[in-house]
Amino acid sequence: MTKAKGIPDPLREWQESSQGRAGKLNQRVIDAMHPADAADHIEELGLEEQVKFIKQLPIRDAADSIAEMEKHDQRDLVERLNVGMAARILEYMSPDDATDILEDLDDDLRETLLRQIKAEDREEISTLLTFDPDTAGGVMTTEVAIVRDNMTVDQAIATIRTEVEDKSIPYYAYVVDRRNHLVGAVSMRDLLISRPGKMLTELTHNQHLISVTYNVDKEEVARLIAHYNFLAMPVTDYDHRFIGVVTVDDVIDIINEEASEDMQSMVGAGTDETTDSPWKYSVKKRLPWLVINVANSAVSAWVVHLFEGNIAKMAMLAVLMPIVANQAGNTGQQALAVMIRQFATEKFDRKKSWEAVFRELKIGLANGICISLLVLFAVFMITSNYTLALVMSAALFIDMVLGAVVGGAIPIILKEFGRDPAQASSIFLTTITDSFGFLSLLGLAGIFLL
Amino acid sequence: MTKAKGIPDPLREWQESSQGRAGKLNQRVIDAMHPADAADHIEELGLEEQVKFIKQLPIRDAADSIAEMEKHDQRDLVERLNVGMAARILEYMSPDDATDILEDLDDDLRETLLRQIKAEDREEISTLLTFDPDTAGGVMTTEVAIVRDNMTVDQAIATIRTEVEDKSIPYYAYVVDRRNHLVGAVSMRDLLISRPGKMLTELTHNQHLISVTYNVDKEEVARLIAHYNFLAMPVTDYDHRFIGVVTVDDVIDIINEEASEDMQSMVGAGTDETTDSPWKYSVKKRLPWLVINVANSAVSAWVVHLFEGNIAKMAMLAVLMPIVANQAGNTGQQALAVMIRQFATEKFDRKKSWEAVFRELKIGLANGICISLLVLFAVFMITSNYTLALVMSAALFIDMVLGAVVGGAIPIILKEFGRDPAQASSIFLTTITDSFGFLSLLGLAGIFLL
Repeated sequence: MTKAKGIPDPLREWQESSQGRAGKLNQRVIDAMHPADAADHIEELGLEEQVKFIKQLPIRDAADSIAEMEKHDQRDLVERLNVGMAARILEYMSPDDATDILEDLDDDLRETLLRQIKAEDREEISTLLTFDPDTAGGVMTTEVAIVRDNMTVDQAIATIRTEVEDKSIPYYAYVVDRRNHLVGAVSMRDLLISRPGKMLTELTHNQHLISVTYNVDKEEVARLIAHYNFLAMPVTDYDHRFIGVVTVDDVIDIINEEASEDMQSMVGAGTDETTDSPWKYSVKKRLPWLVINVANSAVSAWVVHLFEGNIAKMAMLAVLMPIVANQAGNTGQQALAVMIRQFATEKFDRKKSWEAVFRELKIGLANGICISLLVLFAVFMITSNYTLALVMSAALFIDMVLGAVVGGAIPIILKEFGRDPAQASSIFLTTITDSFGFLSLLGLAGIFLL
Repeated sequence: MTKAKGIPDPLREWQESSQGRAGKLNQRVIDAMHPADAADHIEELGLEEQVKFIKQLPIRDAADSIAEMEKHDQRDLVERLNVGMAARILEYMSPDDATDILEDLDDDLRETLLRQIKAEDREEISTLLTFDPDTAGGVMTTEVAIVRDNMTVDQAIATIRTEVEDKSIPYYAYVVDRRNHLVGAVSMRDLLISRPGKMLTELTHNQHLISVTYNVDKEEVARLIAHYNFLAMPVTDYDHRFIGVVTVDDVIDIINEEASEDMQSMVGAGTDETTDSPWKYSVKKRLPWLVINVANSAVSAWVVHLFEGNIAKMAMLAVLMPIVANQAGNTGQQALAVMIRQFATEKFDRKKSWEAVFRELKIGLANGICISLLVLFAVFMITSNYTLALVMSAALFIDMVLGAVVGGAIPIILKEFGRDPAQASSIFLTTITDSFGFLSLLGLAGIFLL
């Protein structure tokens, strides 16, 4: 039983019962549903139906639901709405959500929409649009309660009370000095249980104040929030002036995106592909890496070609080739997987990362010894040719150890070159373990057997 | 510049300057530091030094730091502390953190420690210990503010105020009726800005109340929290009685763990390995899968063996073998990666998952056509043997399409059999694409070439 209780599903009922006919039902339907669920259901409609449905909703409900939709569905939908309505919807969203949508649109449409948005919101969104979307500034929100460091608890509560609008962060208020420098954060609970006349500075006095500047990579922000178990990370400029916060719900999305990126880019699939992506999009993303993979396999094929004569004399070598390649490839992928996850979840300095490669070397040696002894025995039992068995197991051992080291090192090297540690790493690894495995097997065979 | 501001590093200074000599410095050092950072530094010490250092700290600081340490470091450390001190430290932790540590200990030590913990905490921890650690009950905390549905806002505030202890969740209070049924949640901010005489039921009246029962899988809870952008998910029994909450910081850990598990188990590395794991542990986890991989490669080697005669006649076939195996394997891994991530991030029903396999088939056909045309051309240019070129490109095409479908299907099949969708999936995939690739290449060559 893995179903959450209390998720009502009236929209599906409505669709099924009346086949999507317009009606007064819609408002009731959306009201009964969490916007995240409403978004899921809307995504299942065709684009035409989506537009029709959204048009019937009050602007606020439309904004709440669209904010929860997938990026590419958001873009398609906003492009189809008339400009006036789209602008109203964006006004109702939190500025960071509106910015995310605008970022994905054509320059023309973005400018047109921005002009239609009321001045106050426009200014905020325009500022957010200037930040790199992959940084703290690009994912932060500015809808947050701000209080001054010379206030008492009851003054702070009064300030928060007057800001009637929903703030994205209902659990902290940020304390700044008169020049807007970040001084600390107070939780709503602290305010609730403190003596009214208490100065805010008494609450922030002993805090471990941790913040990031706007240009810190969003994945680093995610790692820091995970590390400190924060609900939000304040963002400042270089002068330590408070400019916004990155919230934990965005961090969860960042962590999930990064995990998908790593796993998918490792094998040359698109970093942002999902099973909902159009299949042509996936072909466009994957084909270039498959072409590179052909070029890479050509290298190992060329190694085999160099020894074609040996194979003609002893076809048994071709039988053993896939075993060497497979084992070394798998050994390397094990090292690769552990290294990539380490880069994703922790600060990982150069020294520590090369120590991790040394650890992989030890694992590779131990596993290499075990597996090559096993294969030595098996090949000898089957072929009764002890030289062949020795050659095979030596080649296997060498290639497995190489695989372990290369699998450990590739993410570090990619990172040193400023690339993603996962990028196509599995493809590079296989090229090396295949080529080198064939070289050792066929080379050693040439020396000792033929 | 990716360094967060304001992270002081006095412990390292202290270590470096005085080589860990005991002194009054320690307390100051830990005070100046966030417990998560203190934990990192403590982990870098040897076990003996860790014990010595922890013994000098006030119990509360020791508890805060140990709670933030890695699981295996926690276990090693707690095993080395004397029982009385360890019990005091566990009392100071939040009950869910204490439970996590006790779960990992030997039965004897756990019982001994539990007996030493004061009755009130013992009872709470003992209850938590009864839940499966992979479920909502196993990861929830019970340190949460609870208020009654017949209270007014100011009564609720008074209740929260009297519970002086730090609650793990300083942002919500949960509202229950007289039989402890969950009625809703109120944020501290709602309480702060509401009229004191307002009834709590007025605040919870329009809520989309979402909760899970205690036995829901923790990864499902993580997906729900991510889906709804919640800070915490209330947990109930089957009678909808409120028993605790799963908090978002635990959810981040669950999501990161799951991503590591998937990536690592896919290639047969240990699900909980990190670069800090002892290398012997990694050998123990990986070696069995490498042995299975030998058995699997033996299958594809056997396929090649069946055609040894063909290879002896035409060693060029051995040159082409790695290209077929590599391309089909890579195509399959791309499908695999996207499917595994989909299982990790979304509810994915049977129908939708097989539609995703169909999508992979289309991608496989498109990429298969492109790559095999490329290879047809290349092989013909190099060998001037158009039959060989045709045989090679046909084998490649067939195997790539197979790889795409199999890569898409393996996670679904594993799941149907109640296994993790990622488990050793890459190993199974490669066995199939290798064997079938060699079969088509060498088989077609036998028919058309030799």
